[in-house]
Amino acid sequence: MSGLRVTVWNEGVHEAENDPPVMAEIYPEGIHGALAEGIRSELPTAAVRTALLADPEHGLTEEVLADTDVLLWWGHLAHGEVDAAVVDRVQRHVLGGMGLLVLHSGHFSQIFQRLLGTTCSLGWRDGAEQELVWTVAPHHPIAQGVPNPLVIPEQETYSEFFDIPAPDELIFLSSFDGGEVFRSGVTFFRGHGRIFYFSPGDQRYPVYHQPEIREIIANGIRWTAQPDRPRTPPEVAKLDRHWR
Amino acid sequence: MSGLRVTVWNEGVHEAENDPPVMAEIYPEGIHGALAEGIRSELPTAAVRTALLADPEHGLTEEVLADTDVLLWWGHLAHGEVDAAVVDRVQRHVLGGMGLLVLHSGHFSQIFQRLLGTTCSLGWRDGAEQELVWTVAPHHPIAQGVPNPLVIPEQETYSEFFDIPAPDELIFLSSFDGGEVFRSGVTFFRGHGRIFYFSPGDQRYPVYHQPEIREIIANGIRWTAQPDRPRTPPEVAKLDRHWR
Amino acid sequence: MSGLRVTVWNEGVHEAENDPPVMAEIYPEGIHGALAEGIRSELPTAAVRTALLADPEHGLTEEVLADTDVLLWWGHLAHGEVDAAVVDRVQRHVLGGMGLLVLHSGHFSQIFQRLLGTTCSLGWRDGAEQELVWTVAPHHPIAQGVPNPLVIPEQETYSEFFDIPAPDELIFLSSFDGGEVFRSGVTFFRGHGRIFYFSPGDQRYPVYHQPEIREIIANGIRWTAQPDRPRTPPEVAKLDRHWR
Amino acid sequence: MSGLRVTVWNEGVHEAENDPPVMAEIYPEGIHGALAEGIRSELPTAAVRTALLADPEHGLTEEVLADTDVLLWWGHLAHGEVDAAVVDRVQRHVLGGMGLLVLHSGHFSQIFQRLLGTTCSLGWRDGAEQELVWTVAPHHPIAQGVPNPLVIPEQETYSEFFDIPAPDELIFLSSFDGGEVFRSGVTFFRGHGRIFYFSPGDQRYPVYHQPEIREIIANGIRWTAQPDRPRTPPEVAKLDRHWR
Repeated sequence: MSGLRVTVWNEGVHEAENDPPVMAEIYPEGIHGALAEGIRSELPTAAVRTALLADPEHGLTEEVLADTDVLLWWGHLAHGEVDAAVVDRVQRHVLGGMGLLVLHSGHFSQIFQRLLGTTCSLGWRDGAEQELVWTVAPHHPIAQGVPNPLVIPEQETYSEFFDIPAPDELIFLSSFDGGEVFRSGVTFFRGHGRIFYFSPGDQRYPVYHQPEIREIIANGIRWTAQPDRPRTPPEVAKLDRHWR
Repeated sequence: MSGLRVTVWNEGVHEAENDPPVMAEIYPEGIHGALAEGIRSELPTAAVRTALLADPEHGLTEEVLADTDVLLWWGHLAHGEVDAAVVDRVQRHVLGGMGLLVLHSGHFSQIFQRLLGTTCSLGWRDGAEQELVWTVAPHHPIAQGVPNPLVIPEQETYSEFFDIPAPDELIFLSSFDGGEVFRSGVTFFRGHGRIFYFSPGDQRYPVYHQPEIREIIANGIRWTAQPDRPRTPPEVAKLDRHWR
Repeated sequence: MSGLRVTVWNEGVHEAENDPPVMAEIYPEGIHGALAEGIRSELPTAAVRTALLADPEHGLTEEVLADTDVLLWWGHLAHGEVDAAVVDRVQRHVLGGMGLLVLHSGHFSQIFQRLLGTTCSLGWRDGAEQELVWTVAPHHPIAQGVPNPLVIPEQETYSEFFDIPAPDELIFLSSFDGGEVFRSGVTFFRGHGRIFYFSPGDQRYPVYHQPEIREIIANGIRWTAQPDRPRTPPEVAKLDRHWR
Repeated sequence: MSGLRVTVWNEGVHEAENDPPVMAEIYPEGIHGALAEGIRSELPTAAVRTALLADPEHGLTEEVLADTDVLLWWGHLAHGEVDAAVVDRVQRHVLGGMGLLVLHSGHFSQIFQRLLGTTCSLGWRDGAEQELVWTVAPHHPIAQGVPNPLVIPEQETYSEFFDIPAPDELIFLSSFDGGEVFRSGVTFFRGHGRIFYFSPGDQRYPVYHQPEIREIIANGIRWTAQPDRPRTPPEVAKLDRHWR
């Protein structure tokens, strides 16, 4: 699976405003920069590009998506500023077979809500608490090599009820200091495409520099990628023959 | 479960145009009329109303939906004419706990696509062919009392690939004269709501007069109804305490 | 759903030995006695009987099972002493439509392993720690009326990886003081039968006296019961006709 | 994924008796021989061995299983003659991560029933009828390159209700001349292992020589294989620390 083409999308608003003020220190190249660096390190043959909300067409033109095997999505403050036409386009590519990794606060992105049909709401508290990520699907490729539990020293707390459809695969469950639990690693099949949602990672904590997190993201890219598939969404078909 | 409040929605375009010409003969009171009659017969205590595309707000005002335990949806020619604000409203009520039965060509309705996130496309051929409906979840309440297989003498043919997410429950599988197969009875949980898609039924065939079909629809209404649930969709929650 | 016939099975070994010594104090009528009392209180029309390992045929004769809508199973020390012929018989009744609630350390019972096909192993620690039970399927009948989270002050700790097949429905997730998580309320459909596994409850803690726990068990009984179903497991069928 | 170690198990009773009389003509090297030949052709780097009921320990010693990435299972007449200790051993290896492909009448094997917990019964008729295999999970690796539908000119008819748990993934649905439908390609995760059941193939028809069938079996081997996983089934774990 050499030469995967990966596009890391980030709204880039926290970075532009350096808010929170730790942002520039933790992610000097932006969250997209840290993600891209981790992917290049884990998947040396991958071709990684980044795209931002501020780019023309948010950097997600038809050409870019057609040249993308897996798209990562990170957003938080500006979900409403993403153009509906771009959401349509990304949805069409996912249904046609492009892999999609939705990260952390991307749970509230238009594209995630569009593909799942629910509010994608959850409970949250920001208190720099420990997150423990437990594997409940040890057979799954995304869980390979992951310690059980994986310890994230400081992280925003996410809690159930997480309003998503029952995932096609439940891979990781997290617990937090307050006793909260969260379905933190879940997959969905939609059309011809594969989606992996992974909740760890926040603008306040250096989670995307943690080696185990990078490994999970790399596993997720490998697992959602279908580089050999023609990029065609399912279509209505007028049946023109009988098979018996 | 007495006194369920059921709203039958129909676009009503075939009826208005008597196209196909058999329409007035098979469904003199409209598809909505036949559905309502069947429900009243099977669920004598239910309060059944009908609503049409041509009604103000398509007959689906906030008041009507708030007074509806289960909404049935039949549409075919005019999916694009349904106002987006009404689709938003129906989605919110489903996520809040209103039951939804989507019937036949309703697979291409905006509300079904919205709740599932996929194209909902399929293969089809109209040739008055026999449909056999097989039960693959005999434990399910919707399948109670249903013969295996159920024989529908004449029906439009629907075929895989049906572009839906893997259903939460697969209840019925159909086969057709040409050897096609179709996942004809499937359920989805979204938010607090329950959805049942059932494919038999078409403007050309008197399927909604068939007793077993009426029984399945009544089973589906009972199963999707949650009359005691407060109608509140999941919401984001700021956690204000620790549990340990 | 009046008059459900419920059989509470308990191995009764802890009770016979009063080991742990708190046993006689917490459960003077045995775990089966406390469960039966709770069910009678929550489901006043139910006919509740108890059965013990020490009874002839463990109290689970063909007659008893044929007269049982829902069987509860509690065991811990003596899983290996359950006669294989009784396990066969219970399995046959579950596949024929009898409801089964497997409780706590019953995860290691022969009948649970038999119906699931896996080791049903898990991680555990006994330290009188708090258990928080979170609802992740708010639409489910078993979750109706349950606080989120439900707090159990003291309980044995169970932890992932819990070696079960992916459940048909994931209803409850628990967390514990050490940060562990556990899929504590799960359902399985097998044959014509419905199974609910619920992990809270132990011989050292008065969990089965807690009102919310009693309510969940009553919900589970109502949900697994299929009193109107003929008690016939699926059988091989020689097809003697064509449907086309 | 070079060098997969594949063991093809066949009871070999039809072959020994040349009953049906076409057996020697269609499968002169036995069903196991035809399967092995197809695998060697599709997966040239695989090391393929065969094992028979008549072999000591049915050819499935601890050493053989420890040296097997994927086991194929074909049986029909002699399910009851398989030694329980061998079934235990195969189950342990599957739960530890060995891949398992169960073929056709293997649905009634002890190992399949053991891993699924149900009767695995179905409807059947032998009439040399056409089977159409439809893909309902086009995203799945096992479905890659498979025509939709795949046409098998002559085959035994299998029909629902197929008494299996809801599969973790439903990949193929078949229809037959009489209008029957069958879930013909399904996967299950059990413990650390992956199982693929595929129903086409019978002692009377040359199905295992058909190129598309060979391709599906090769896809199934690739997908169930986990050559890098330590072969350890899940075990109970006494937790010796707190994570918070």
